[in-house]
Amino acid sequence: MHRYRSHTCAALSKSDVGQTVRLSGWVHRVRDHGGLLFIDLRDHYGMTQIVVDPDSPAFKTAETVRGEWVIRIDGLVKARSDETVNKHMATGEIELYAQEIEVLSAAKELPLPVFGEPDYPEDVRLKYRFLDLRRETLHRNIVKRTQIIADMRRRMSEIGFAEYSTPILTASSPEGARDFLVPSRIHEGKFFALPQAPQQYKQLLMVAGFDRYFQIAPCFRDEDPRADRLPGEFYQLDLEMSFVTQEDVWNTMEPVMRGVFEQFAEGKPVTQEFRRIPHETAIRTYGSDKPDLRNPIEMQAVTEHFAGSGFKVFANMIASNPKVEVWAIPAKTGGSRAFCDRMNAWAQSTGQPGLGYIFWRKEGEKLEGAGPLAKNIGEERTDAIRTQLGLDDGDACFFVAGDPAKFYKFAGEARTRAGEELNLVDRDRFELCWIIDFPFYEWLEDEKKIDFAHNPFSMPQGGLEALNTQDPLSLKAYQYDLVCNGFEIASGSIRNQLPEVMVKAFELTGKSAEEVEEQFGGLYRAFQYGAPPHGGMAAGIDRVIMLLVGAKNLREVTLFPMNQQAQDLLMGAPSPATPAQLRELALRVIPTAKKD
Amino acid sequence: MHRYRSHTCAALSKSDVGQTVRLSGWVHRVRDHGGLLFIDLRDHYGMTQIVVDPDSPAFKTAETVRGEWVIRIDGLVKARSDETVNKHMATGEIELYAQEIEVLSAAKELPLPVFGEPDYPEDVRLKYRFLDLRRETLHRNIVKRTQIIADMRRRMSEIGFAEYSTPILTASSPEGARDFLVPSRIHEGKFFALPQAPQQYKQLLMVAGFDRYFQIAPCFRDEDPRADRLPGEFYQLDLEMSFVTQEDVWNTMEPVMRGVFEQFAEGKPVTQEFRRIPHETAIRTYGSDKPDLRNPIEMQAVTEHFAGSGFKVFANMIASNPKVEVWAIPAKTGGSRAFCDRMNAWAQSTGQPGLGYIFWRKEGEKLEGAGPLAKNIGEERTDAIRTQLGLDDGDACFFVAGDPAKFYKFAGEARTRAGEELNLVDRDRFELCWIIDFPFYEWLEDEKKIDFAHNPFSMPQGGLEALNTQDPLSLKAYQYDLVCNGFEIASGSIRNQLPEVMVKAFELTGKSAEEVEEQFGGLYRAFQYGAPPHGGMAAGIDRVIMLLVGAKNLREVTLFPMNQQAQDLLMGAPSPATPAQLRELALRVIPTAKKD
Repeated sequence: MHRYRSHTCAALSKSDVGQTVRLSGWVHRVRDHGGLLFIDLRDHYGMTQIVVDPDSPAFKTAETVRGEWVIRIDGLVKARSDETVNKHMATGEIELYAQEIEVLSAAKELPLPVFGEPDYPEDVRLKYRFLDLRRETLHRNIVKRTQIIADMRRRMSEIGFAEYSTPILTASSPEGARDFLVPSRIHEGKFFALPQAPQQYKQLLMVAGFDRYFQIAPCFRDEDPRADRLPGEFYQLDLEMSFVTQEDVWNTMEPVMRGVFEQFAEGKPVTQEFRRIPHETAIRTYGSDKPDLRNPIEMQAVTEHFAGSGFKVFANMIASNPKVEVWAIPAKTGGSRAFCDRMNAWAQSTGQPGLGYIFWRKEGEKLEGAGPLAKNIGEERTDAIRTQLGLDDGDACFFVAGDPAKFYKFAGEARTRAGEELNLVDRDRFELCWIIDFPFYEWLEDEKKIDFAHNPFSMPQGGLEALNTQDPLSLKAYQYDLVCNGFEIASGSIRNQLPEVMVKAFELTGKSAEEVEEQFGGLYRAFQYGAPPHGGMAAGIDRVIMLLVGAKNLREVTLFPMNQQAQDLLMGAPSPATPAQLRELALRVIPTAKKD
Repeated sequence: MHRYRSHTCAALSKSDVGQTVRLSGWVHRVRDHGGLLFIDLRDHYGMTQIVVDPDSPAFKTAETVRGEWVIRIDGLVKARSDETVNKHMATGEIELYAQEIEVLSAAKELPLPVFGEPDYPEDVRLKYRFLDLRRETLHRNIVKRTQIIADMRRRMSEIGFAEYSTPILTASSPEGARDFLVPSRIHEGKFFALPQAPQQYKQLLMVAGFDRYFQIAPCFRDEDPRADRLPGEFYQLDLEMSFVTQEDVWNTMEPVMRGVFEQFAEGKPVTQEFRRIPHETAIRTYGSDKPDLRNPIEMQAVTEHFAGSGFKVFANMIASNPKVEVWAIPAKTGGSRAFCDRMNAWAQSTGQPGLGYIFWRKEGEKLEGAGPLAKNIGEERTDAIRTQLGLDDGDACFFVAGDPAKFYKFAGEARTRAGEELNLVDRDRFELCWIIDFPFYEWLEDEKKIDFAHNPFSMPQGGLEALNTQDPLSLKAYQYDLVCNGFEIASGSIRNQLPEVMVKAFELTGKSAEEVEEQFGGLYRAFQYGAPPHGGMAAGIDRVIMLLVGAKNLREVTLFPMNQQAQDLLMGAPSPATPAQLRELALRVIPTAKKD
């Protein structure tokens, strides 16, 4: 027989009854039932119930074992009696009568219980991550993570993408976030950087004539810890294609992403055809460029119904500034004063002056708009609004007025809140859509200049001519996001591969051709020697996995995460370097006043 | 029609004749044949011959295009005449008559030609890697690299391994080579390290109850550049299994590695059953722990034939020191004085005093041993040696005497040289074997102490009892290598997962339990809480790919390698950090006298 096991702990069934087998695993728990010892033996694959009879030669050892000891058991497979069969367990029809037990590894008293996985402080969980990872939920999440990533790889390779690994020790690239630096020992005073994304390398691959690249790519950003991101490293499903338009990217990746979601959604519905929503429409309809489409509320502009109306606050705003609009947030089933007042109070709690509303109710046979706004604007306008929004008895509508550029986020939050409070959001589904036609530039109010709204590597719609002739802030980019349930899960663009367009695009942000060449030298140089039109995207793998396993925290889907202070408590990183290491790197630590 | 292409440049065949199609790609070369222009249009997939007639509206543009421009061509597919069919080309039966040409991206004068891939200085190739990668051989190598790695992944997942990504920002680990350090901005004066290998993490995964781990793992070692390794990063097929003996690892991985080799060997034979050669046998038989088994020469000890013989040099050495042995290197077909003298001269050129030999020839009917040694030891001993080694007329034998620990490497080199010079080595095959039972400890002559011969994480054969009772230098480890054609391509072991055995093993090298805990804290702690027996290995992916594509240089199988001075000439890394970056990291560069 094998030194450690003839079967895994998930393998035995009724057909093995009568066999003598060998199992190895962890003691999940031990119970004493009137002299008989029951051991739940656990491994990666499952659990088997062990019975140790006081007459068994294994009994003496069995009495000593405790939770999380690793043991080997030889025993006889017996069928359970009908009343003890456990239908929830793959091995629930049998139990193993132990004949011999060998302790392979004992365990000290556990700093973190595995059985029952009770809540425990996160620092303990991270320091003893090897115990934490044995716990059922986290273990299952991590297994699912490996399956999701393997599934992504399979789908990408099935449609002709090859996986290329791009360098991890590379050049600092002014791409947005802060780089992690790696001092060079051989070239003192010089540093490598860890890639924030393989953006430049994947574009170089296209220029090098490879056609369909993908990579499960580690990315590194030295950003301050935040609740919804892990410090340090994260993974992207990164891809790039040559000779494509943005429609090609969407048509290629939509089946991949839908397939991954369907494979792991455990039966929850997944959007069959992803809507392609222009950025401006998303902002106007959902108040967000990552709308949660599970929320059926769609906002509309109702400015004309308030222009010149008796509701002077809005009417005066509209009259005094052509930018002012009034947006309506229809809230079906929200038609009670209590709910509307709750929304109003919430708005005030976020610093808004309030949230105007109308709600409709039947007065006898007549449908009547209620609330101060309705009174001020009168019956006709109230009913015009109701008709425009398709509302009825028992529904409400909230109104936000002002410059949409300033209020749209709040309007989006109000939409979210109304949808959630009224239970209009169907949580058990995955709603995916493309947000397209992002603005190319944005206005930086602080610096009084324009800058790239997103990716400086994107192609502006209309190309060089548009850059030369149009208002920069009106330009759109071939730039798109993939959004699921209110989260951006991927982002991409068709790239700007024409040196003269690149120089012009940067020029409008105040960068000279020399600066472009200096900062993006490799890529800029490459574009001089025959660069194909190309584009792609990158999907945030950790976020996709979180959505699919229903986790609320990135650390619940990550093997060995750092804590919120960017420390690895298990391995003790970061840690001081030795004087010899620093000498070799020609570095000295100069402590500053800031606290560690 | 699609904006850029209806087909790739490898897709068109006779069945498309008469179709109007669209292709995009790079101008591989342009030829002018009596007014007609021929353009070889290239993309990732292949090549198509374009014909541009002077009457075609595309002619004017066609006249302007140069090598490596990216163009789109609309045209009519025509069959080639029988005499112009090119059977070596997938699209060799057709040509495309251009009707319209659009320049998608022009190219400046090329610093590195693509067509014909002439030899070029490596610094130019690395700086313009995007052009270098378009060249046929490198492009094909890289494509094969992606296929080999994908094949490894597929095979591993088919036998129940899941791929887990372990952290890249981690703790410094005193594992042998030098770490790359990454300064922490948040914890000033502290550093992360890039992993030299995921060794500790993969073992932690086993302790965490995951059963079969693998990873195409990036590894980082800050070693001085050397011809046969890339500075910086490299990849391993890393794996680990729980509840296994070393035979399980061999039986699991042998089909995987054989399968990968067979898949990509292009018909060259691959060893069907890998021999398992004890380390000591490998040294004595091949003079190397990474023997090239394509070389049929097997050495044997022939000490007794020289003991007390008339060849006083050897006889006296043997008499004066019981460690002294004489090894014979049989060289079939090497039986000429010219060859033997050449070997002798080579030995002297490496600093050896010389290389004794005997060669056999027919004198009339009689087989006679020739050379000074034969004369000195006499006919009987000469013939005994010949018989022991199975040699005959026309064969030779070389002899090395002394302490085998000191001469075995030279003996191995002589074996290699003899085999190669005599063309005994069949280059067109892949010979794989396991080298097993490596010594656990070695003697460090400089430091006058014992240290781990290989992996401190390996389990000594015989466990704690052997550590307590045997001569440490006689201990063997459950440690093994996989060798192909003279290269170590993988290394692994059964791990030492028992804290008390680990402490004892380190104690013999002079490390206290406290030091073990400090240096391997995460893993040592983990072993206290129920650690399964486990083991695994790691295969050097770059080396495997080099063997399979027949490349002589790692840079020929790597996408964006650094040069031998550890610089990325394409992206310009490493580079100076800004004062602001250094300030944020609380670091100052202190130039030393050493040159950059």
